[in-house]
Amino acid sequence: MTDDYKVIEVKRSIFEDNDADADRLREELREEKTFLLNLMSSPGAGKTTTLKRTIANLKDEMRIGVMEADIDSDVDAASIIEAGARAIQIHTGGMCHLDADMTRQGLKEFGTSDLDFVVLENVGNLVCPAEFDTGATKNAMILSVPEGDDKPLKYPLMFSVCDVVLINKCDALPVFQEFDKEAVEQRIKELNPNAEIFFVSAKTGEGFDQWINWVRTQVAEYRGV
Amino acid sequence: MTDDYKVIEVKRSIFEDNDADADRLREELREEKTFLLNLMSSPGAGKTTTLKRTIANLKDEMRIGVMEADIDSDVDAASIIEAGARAIQIHTGGMCHLDADMTRQGLKEFGTSDLDFVVLENVGNLVCPAEFDTGATKNAMILSVPEGDDKPLKYPLMFSVCDVVLINKCDALPVFQEFDKEAVEQRIKELNPNAEIFFVSAKTGEGFDQWINWVRTQVAEYRGV
Repeated sequence: MTDDYKVIEVKRSIFEDNDADADRLREELREEKTFLLNLMSSPGAGKTTTLKRTIANLKDEMRIGVMEADIDSDVDAASIIEAGARAIQIHTGGMCHLDADMTRQGLKEFGTSDLDFVVLENVGNLVCPAEFDTGATKNAMILSVPEGDDKPLKYPLMFSVCDVVLINKCDALPVFQEFDKEAVEQRIKELNPNAEIFFVSAKTGEGFDQWINWVRTQVAEYRGV
Repeated sequence: MTDDYKVIEVKRSIFEDNDADADRLREELREEKTFLLNLMSSPGAGKTTTLKRTIANLKDEMRIGVMEADIDSDVDAASIIEAGARAIQIHTGGMCHLDADMTRQGLKEFGTSDLDFVVLENVGNLVCPAEFDTGATKNAMILSVPEGDDKPLKYPLMFSVCDVVLINKCDALPVFQEFDKEAVEQRIKELNPNAEIFFVSAKTGEGFDQWINWVRTQVAEYRGV
């Protein structure tokens, strides 16, 4: 596994630089009082729909921006702008994650000093994005009900690095009756006892009050409001 | 983006070695007449459930093996063995994909000369696995209805490299009425005019006849039976 080993070596040296980059970006964001949320999930778990409803709930009380890191399309940024936030699309050139330097470049281009709450919609992927600190203030992930309640067992790092987990598409629970809400909660808590877990449906708005309150409180505390 | 550039350089040199490794593995597999299917999808799209039903349909007419590349758990291998196939679990140490060398090592450990049809259940990820030729005879992917019909727009490489696409969880279409079967088919065909597309439900068995026939025909042609 010489090739494989080479990759890991390079990854490690990037990790070291990346951690320093991430800390530096966090300091810069703190100076301008911009809260950056790194939002991760599998493809199709509902990041964009969740964001659109979140923006609709919060756009009158804070200035919101979204940085989209989709791989090849600009479908999402357009729909985010329609929802009432500023948005920028990053093309990652096929990269499977964003690191802190890529995040900073995107934010610099975006201009965030007039924004209170910025969401980085990371590449849809439960593996690589979990390995790279983007410099975000907090990490969030969405697990959707159709993906199954075993995902914390298979992608433990992702669940370990997140401050908050949204269990989305709860409106589909009648079709996915095998999804065990208690089991998934227990599996997440075993990996990450401090994780906040909210059961929501971005489609219907079910459970959104708690999530919106979490964002509101986090941003207010961070900004010292 | 110096760090980023470094990654891409190393990736490229791996690609070159990897392509040669993949071709060598394909030759070795052809000598022992073992058909290797590389099965990819997002986390939770239904790879394991699809495999279990596929094994149940075919286990009396061919010798089947499954190589599981889940990241940290051995939940899947156990359930595959129960379904009636030989199985091996590979722990990828957090890697987000398998390359040809990792695949060959796993297959060597597994011992495939007495198997007709081997499925490599790749890491749940629509990005990285698409970039690495594993040496498989054919590539397949599963897109599940709840992920949405826009996925070919966002993960075009994955849809481009696959010989067959299963659209799974069609039993959930009544809850995901926004999923447009014609649109997804058209988007896949634009990227990959030769892709076979089957609409199925691994849970109910809907649409499985066509998929099973595809596997049966492919394996028979490959083995010259």
